[in-house]
Order: sequence, then structure tokens, then C-alpha cells
Amino acid sequence: TVAAREYKDELPLLFRPLYEETSWTYTFLLGCPVTKEAILIDPVDLTVERDLQVIKEMGLTLVAALNTHCHADHVTGSGLLAQKVPGCKSMIAKISGAKASIHLEPGNRVRFGRRYVEARATPGHTNGCMTFVTDDMKMAFTGDALLIRGCGRTDFQQGSPETMFESIWTQIFSLPHETSVYPGHDYRGRLMSTIGEEKRFNSRLSGKSKEEFIEIMNNLKLAYPKKIDVALPANLVDGVLAS
Amino acid sequence: TVAAREYKDELPLLFRPLYEETSWTYTFLLGCPVTKEAILIDPVDLTVERDLQVIKEMGLTLVAALNTHCHADHVTGSGLLAQKVPGCKSMIAKISGAKASIHLEPGNRVRFGRRYVEARATPGHTNGCMTFVTDDMKMAFTGDALLIRGCGRTDFQQGSPETMFESIWTQIFSLPHETSVYPGHDYRGRLMSTIGEEKRFNSRLSGKSKEEFIEIMNNLKLAYPKKIDVALPANLVDGVLAS
Ligand SMILES: [Fe+2]
Ligand SMILES: [Fe+2]
Repeated sequence: TVAAREYKDELPLLFRPLYEETSWTYTFLLGCPVTKEAILIDPVDLTVERDLQVIKEMGLTLVAALNTHCHADHVTGSGLLAQKVPGCKSMIAKISGAKASIHLEPGNRVRFGRRYVEARATPGHTNGCMTFVTDDMKMAFTGDALLIRGCGRTDFQQGSPETMFESIWTQIFSLPHETSVYPGHDYRGRLMSTIGEEKRFNSRLSGKSKEEFIEIMNNLKLAYPKKIDVALPANLVDGVLAS
Repeated sequence: TVAAREYKDELPLLFRPLYEETSWTYTFLLGCPVTKEAILIDPVDLTVERDLQVIKEMGLTLVAALNTHCHADHVTGSGLLAQKVPGCKSMIAKISGAKASIHLEPGNRVRFGRRYVEARATPGHTNGCMTFVTDDMKMAFTGDALLIRGCGRTDFQQGSPETMFESIWTQIFSLPHETSVYPGHDYRGRLMSTIGEEKRFNSRLSGKSKEEFIEIMNNLKLAYPKKIDVALPANLVDGVLAS
């Protein structure tokens, strides 16, 4: 059919993974190859200038800076980007309670040129966590919900293992097996995985009942998050203190 | 034509970038989607077990562990991998003088299933540096020759700015503008670039004559490489001391 042919012939999505080493955070740049409009997922305050340089040199126009959630381990760069780039909107889930230019509701599409990501509600790590899925379902940016062979902690910030289990199974594991999974962090240096791999090899989730998952999550005995007392208040105001 | 059609319909290369944080080294896993044979480019000794887990869980068979050069900043994992994985050969340029199962000559093709990378000689950082280019020329793994907006140092290990300039222009910048560049390191958290971007924005190379490049390289005033006295002797014996 014509529609299928047009889609197939289209240039591939522009894509750059970026890394902030003090918080082990991945930032993802996605761009429309036709119009050159772009979005950043989970920018960090410390690497905003690097990100802007990459965007400029690739000839892109940043239209949105998205947060998968209100982070506790680093300060977001989204507010700074919205200040520095005319037309760039910062975004986060409405239910997070955090400040942003635009509050996202589940199912919203964030458009950049001819492409978009769909914002899926995946609460559990925080109540405002979202997973961003590309229009072709080839990539899912899961933030701190689904991690590679693991998942985000559920013992802070309105965390709930029961809710996390539901989110992952209904909103993330329902994607095709071939969909690439790009988490917000990986503490073993892996960049990506796939839905198929995580369904088979995620030791907290694969073959586990909801009760078993809750039991695992309630017994992780994790340390108090190092930067939470600095990062959370800052991220509730989009990473930028009123001057 | 039939050939073009077959090529286009083929499944995409399996690809996973991996990261070793103490030396900021990127390791790249490439796999044939049909036969599931795979190669690792620049494995690090510290992350061999992680790499083997990823390979196993992806259902891949490792046939080669390649070094872009004899590293001075980390110990290679190639010898360990050749010991641990039956049928896996460690590889490095013959001219490097380092031990390996197979010594590479310029132009050699390293095959994995239906795919291969071509080994191009790109001396300058060391005399045995190689850049590995995929069969479809979509990706170039440049090691410490071409870096993102920079290049490897030329003041140790048979380094030569003049040779580096020739290598980059004749063997790397001769690739298509769209070819993705994956360097061995990036100290600003970027994973990749393209040939087109580097030709335009690499401050050491873009618009610079050979004389200007040599002048820049001879005045970098870099510190003595921290791990060189440990890493070099180890890497000359494939990262594995005789027992
Ligand atoms: Fe988080
Ligand atoms: Fe090196």
C-alpha cells in the first residue's frame, strides 16, 4: 500500500544517547530527520551546555525537554533548556506535582516534526513516572520504571511495588518483543535491552507473581538516596530556582 | 534488482554499546541477526563477565574479540575471552607487536555470520591502530584515532601527528558523511557522531592543514597517562599473564 511504502522509505529517526557520569544518567536526543525538530528525554542540569552544542551542530531545533519523572538523584536540565531555547517546553507528568511548561497526561503525544513519542503512565517508582514510546514502537524510554534486568526502587517518593508491577506488565511488557528498552540509568554500563530480553531475564519480574515481586522489592535494603534532599526540591520547580 | 532487494530485506545488525566506567571505555557488541555469531570490539578485562552475560542472554556465539590498538589506559579483555569462549579468537594489528590469536593486516575482513567488519590501518595514536568499518559502511569504530570533536594523543606509543592526519583523512574521512562514528572513549558522555559532523566540527581537523594539525598536537601538554605502566605490558600479552 502507499501508506506503508511512504513510511518505509522515510529517513530513520535521528537518535543520540548521551551520558552524565556523576549520576550515571542517560539523556536521549530524538530528532525528526525531515523537519529537524527534536526532543530531549531526561536532560541533566550539569550537561545542558553539551546537549545544546550537540543539538546546534546537528542542525536541530529543540521543541521539548521531557522528564520521565521527578528525579531524586540529579537535577533536571529541562527548566534551564526551556529558559535558554525559545520555543522549547519543559514537560513532566501532571500527577508528579512538579513545575513544567506543559503537564503531561497519560496517552499524550509529544510531537517533534513528523514524529512523536507517546507518554504512557508507568507509576510505581514515583506516582508521576512516564515511559515514552516512539510512534513506530521501536523504542521505549522507561526512566526508572523498567531497568535492564531490574527496576527502580519503590521505597521513596510515593513508590509502590504493587503499582510498579501493574505498570510494567500492562504498559511496558505489552510492547512488541523487539522493542528496544532505553532505561534512565544502568549501573553496569549497558545502554539498552529489549522487551523480549527483559521478559525472559529480568530477575525481579520474569516468571514472578505480583506477590513474589512485592516481597523482593520490600527486602532490597537499599541505602538512603544520596542526592535526594537536594535534587527533589530543585526538580519540583523544574530544576530552576526562582531568582 | 534481486541483490539489492535481498540486502534491504535483511534483518538489521544486532548492536549493543557497552561502557566501562573506570577507564571511560566503550566496548561494542556486533552480531549477525541470522546466524547469531558475534564479535566484541575493545572489551575490557573488568567487564568480561558482564559482556559474556549479555552475549549469552542474547543467544549469541562470540567468534572474535578485537582490539582497535594496544591500549595504555585499560587492560584488554580479549585474551580472557579467547580463553573462556571456545572458538573465540583475540585479534589485534600485527604491527602492534602485541600477542593475540590472530594478527590483522590492513584490509582484512573479520567475519561473523553473514556480516563482517573491514580492518583499516589508521596509525598515528599508535602504529598498530585500526578502525573497524561495517560491510555496509554504516558504522566505523575508530578506537583512539578519530574521537568526537577530537583525536587520540600522539605523544606516546609510536605516536605521530603527521601519520594521524594522513590516517584520518585517507581512511576515515573518506567514508560517507552519514557513516556513524563510534570512538573508543568520549570524556563528555557522547556515544557517537558522524563523518559529516566531524569533518565540519572537529576543532583539530576541520579546515586545518597538516602543519596546523601537527602544531596543535605538539602543544597539547597532556599529563603522563595514569595506567600506562600497568596496562601496556599487560596488553602486549593479550591482557593475560602466562601462568
Ligand atoms: Fe528516579
Ligand atoms: Fe589508546
